[in-house]
Amino acid sequence: MAGSRRTVDVAELVERARAGEARAVARLISLVENDSPRLREVAAALAPHGGHAQVVGLTGSPGVGKSTSTSVLVTALRAEGKRVGVLAVDPSSPFSGGALLGDRVRMQDHATDDGVFIRSMASRGQLGGLSAAVPQALRVLDAARCDVVLVETVGVGQAEVEIASLADTTIVLLAPGMGDGIQAAKAGILEIADIFVVNKADRDGADQVARDLRYMQSLGGRHSEAGAWRPPIVKTVAARGEGVDKVVAAIAKHADWMQRHGVLAERRRARAASEIEAIALGEVRQRFASVHGSAALDAAAARVVAGETDPYTAAGELVEAL
Amino acid sequence: MAGSRRTVDVAELVERARAGEARAVARLISLVENDSPRLREVAAALAPHGGHAQVVGLTGSPGVGKSTSTSVLVTALRAEGKRVGVLAVDPSSPFSGGALLGDRVRMQDHATDDGVFIRSMASRGQLGGLSAAVPQALRVLDAARCDVVLVETVGVGQAEVEIASLADTTIVLLAPGMGDGIQAAKAGILEIADIFVVNKADRDGADQVARDLRYMQSLGGRHSEAGAWRPPIVKTVAARGEGVDKVVAAIAKHADWMQRHGVLAERRRARAASEIEAIALGEVRQRFASVHGSAALDAAAARVVAGETDPYTAAGELVEAL
Repeated sequence: MAGSRRTVDVAELVERARAGEARAVARLISLVENDSPRLREVAAALAPHGGHAQVVGLTGSPGVGKSTSTSVLVTALRAEGKRVGVLAVDPSSPFSGGALLGDRVRMQDHATDDGVFIRSMASRGQLGGLSAAVPQALRVLDAARCDVVLVETVGVGQAEVEIASLADTTIVLLAPGMGDGIQAAKAGILEIADIFVVNKADRDGADQVARDLRYMQSLGGRHSEAGAWRPPIVKTVAARGEGVDKVVAAIAKHADWMQRHGVLAERRRARAASEIEAIALGEVRQRFASVHGSAALDAAAARVVAGETDPYTAAGELVEAL
Repeated sequence: MAGSRRTVDVAELVERARAGEARAVARLISLVENDSPRLREVAAALAPHGGHAQVVGLTGSPGVGKSTSTSVLVTALRAEGKRVGVLAVDPSSPFSGGALLGDRVRMQDHATDDGVFIRSMASRGQLGGLSAAVPQALRVLDAARCDVVLVETVGVGQAEVEIASLADTTIVLLAPGMGDGIQAAKAGILEIADIFVVNKADRDGADQVARDLRYMQSLGGRHSEAGAWRPPIVKTVAARGEGVDKVVAAIAKHADWMQRHGVLAERRRARAASEIEAIALGEVRQRFASVHGSAALDAAAARVVAGETDPYTAAGELVEAL
């Protein structure tokens, strides 16, 4: 059946994804991964079907309970009849795809639920950043009429900031006893968080984490302006499902606030702009890579060595010839 | 007198540099540093006057005696009547210019010698690499009719490999008791060295360092081919000037070998090619930076958000419009 992969009709796949067919969703995400030759075709077919989903980023240090929180959030959102997508992005993993055992196991509660789409993605972006496929996978889940897409990522380095730039709503998870107070200030998560969740709230120190966060919020910043969104601090015990309803409520409240204040449209415009810019820059790089070792470059180098021209003039000519 | 800086005639400066005027040389290097607006003008004026100097890179770990070796090499080359340029590149320093006290002191033997040009440069390249000004400074010293230009750099990270790519002849300095045997294998210096110098050869372990090098050479690689250059291993005690004549002889022998085998022309062509490529890529990046936040990008983003187009199509249009 390998041959049929090539002849797949993208428009038909998009239609099937919109109808909620999990296999079509998985197939489309595969097509946008790895810079497949059909990436552009898929992107074009998805374009008219976006803008529905609320993209919710979930980030936090290892051990705060991201996977568990994601899983109970899915359950709570499903209970409200919402269609949910989950994109688990692991910036430290070179592996991608839907077949990661870990995700299958932890998400097995939802494995038979046809209102949930779950996908693991590695980050394979250049320069250590998130893979360019992540925004495209979001578009697939959006086109598949997900109401909420949860993007879960380990809070490592730049990844959490990048997730925030992709999300409509960013949830930062913390837990007591992890030195998160300091970590919060360091990583600039105050700037990216729309909602704080203090998980493992049954443990000692949870109140202290919440107090630290409130104190840092009181120091001002963008949230002190009138009409500004002040990120709520929600306590949960995800392993027992406690407090998850409050997180769901906070997500809905944030969506509502963004709508009323024109923030949603603004965030999406900014996100589209950086996405376009990144793709365009990648394209320019690729075109330029074809110059390397080319006859034009060799000829220019020979002229520079002969003293007939200087490297700046030669470079300018090369750029013009692109 | 600050005003006269602006009205300086580049062609005249190049003529004065060719005549051996140290101030003109220093001034030209200043003009090619910091991506000055006159960089291109200087590069164009230098173009016809290159190809004379043998560029000799000197690299090695901190403490092997690079500064001392450079200084005694200058003395030895001067004794042969050669005009010598020295470029001390410090990839860890944010400072550049000719006024670094350290260099002045250690090079004070040559301070009154008008056949020697000494310059310190910081590495301020993007992405941690060597500054783009380094090859241009080499061109200035070349145009100033230096017979040999010594480029000295601390062997840190990529810098030594980059120096090797700029040099006609690369000298790797080692010293006993510094774990250089392991370091040599690690850093791939076997690949970049044209000449090995084991300095501090009066110390215990010098013979072992030389033996280790010979052993590694015997393991093959490019040097085992017929007619290939087999990097000599020269022992020195730079602080007493011992063995420096053998280094000078090895430098001359390598120049001769490169000439006879067409390697010099090939290295210079390759060097010019990567230089042109780097400049051109920088230019493309700069042009592209002007897109960021532009009206064209904003309009494209709005169309993507509205579902009228997809980000790949929008990016393609932006690239075409460059």
